[in-house]
Amino acid sequence: MNNLETLFIPEEIKNKELAGKLVVVIDVLRASSTIVTALVNGCNGFIPILSPELAKEEAQQFEKERVLLGGEREGKKIEGFDLGNSPREYKREVVKDKTIIFSTTNGVKTLEMVKDAHRIIIGSFLNLQAVCNYCTNYQGDISIICSGKEGQFSLEDAACAGMIIHSLRDVSFSGHKEIDANLTAQLLYEKFGNNILKLLRKSQHGRYLESIGLDEDLKFCSQLDFFDIVPIFRDGIISI
Amino acid sequence: MNNLETLFIPEEIKNKELAGKLVVVIDVLRASSTIVTALVNGCNGFIPILSPELAKEEAQQFEKERVLLGGEREGKKIEGFDLGNSPREYKREVVKDKTIIFSTTNGVKTLEMVKDAHRIIIGSFLNLQAVCNYCTNYQGDISIICSGKEGQFSLEDAACAGMIIHSLRDVSFSGHKEIDANLTAQLLYEKFGNNILKLLRKSQHGRYLESIGLDEDLKFCSQLDFFDIVPIFRDGIISI
Repeated sequence: MNNLETLFIPEEIKNKELAGKLVVVIDVLRASSTIVTALVNGCNGFIPILSPELAKEEAQQFEKERVLLGGEREGKKIEGFDLGNSPREYKREVVKDKTIIFSTTNGVKTLEMVKDAHRIIIGSFLNLQAVCNYCTNYQGDISIICSGKEGQFSLEDAACAGMIIHSLRDVSFSGHKEIDANLTAQLLYEKFGNNILKLLRKSQHGRYLESIGLDEDLKFCSQLDFFDIVPIFRDGIISI
Repeated sequence: MNNLETLFIPEEIKNKELAGKLVVVIDVLRASSTIVTALVNGCNGFIPILSPELAKEEAQQFEKERVLLGGEREGKKIEGFDLGNSPREYKREVVKDKTIIFSTTNGVKTLEMVKDAHRIIIGSFLNLQAVCNYCTNYQGDISIICSGKEGQFSLEDAACAGMIIHSLRDVSFSGHKEIDANLTAQLLYEKFGNNILKLLRKSQHGRYLESIGLDEDLKFCSQLDFFDIVPIFRDGIISI
């Protein structure tokens, strides 16, 4: 039987063998939510790049009208970039047929750390059921990896993992209810249930985003099963 | 006002400044519990050493009758060592006036990682209230650091942190109830309350220890406020 585990912090990957596994990368606020939204809106794909400088170099490999620079530092748009990290910016008229070169603080770092996995998908509340369906059909071990915040635990990612684990409760995994992190993630799900906006407003990063005027992003990211797609990261690009 | 935070995994320390802080190192199963017990039983102190080989070298600096080698790998006594990592082995007649050279998988690694902190103390369920009193009187920021298990989240350490945070709920810290990890640790406390043995038996490492015949250790480590001491780690040695 296959395993299903949660890692609360990407640094936990270090002692893990990811080859052969399905990895679900979660960064609810906001990289995961932004990627899902943009791909629904017809964007070609996201190329995650750690540093803004290298992202700018990468963008020069594309025809100018086919590429956009997106991402954030401290939650705000990077100087010289076209877009920040708000899913609401990634509208159809902006992103259709464009490739996004994407640099964010946490989510992009996680993607870099998991690149040895067999399959990498992007999870958020926006596409939660789609992710669960993907997991149900996957034949192999699954790691749900929370991006956290600058190497620290984050409530919203852990609770999203908890909701995935709860949704997969009737799928046969090997003792996954007995894994410490799974049990804890599920407790967070039980605490907040489907009141995701309350959860996001309670979280440290949610409160930070509110403080810089981005409460609307919390509302957007709290929409459960709003989209039915599963972004897949392969060969350096995230697409559907 | 001072801060109180929980780190679920020692690797979270990397992005933290510990200078000036009080660090509470938790490794309920079993390094913390063993250290507390041995010091109550008259042991001189613990010298934590990462590798068993270096521990053996260090022991040679002492008169033979004044030193013992203690610790574990995979929960079991290390070859050539005098003691394992069961607090029940560290009886008065064994450890009185002895220095323990101590090498364990998780707790000792955490101690190595926090050595830049202003003050380092050892916490467990056995000395929980004593640790809380120490925290209450400390003038400065406090980090409760869970040792986890081989770089992974562990239920019993997080729940112990949650009980400390719960106990300090009426002490004035700066917004500590709003920190993601504190809130999650407290949820674990609310889930298990004072039923610590149930918690330990539920945890992955607790079940592993049971599987190698060490259920009695879970019972021992589950005794709340059994001892009234606070071990302090300074100048390379843990003592009271």
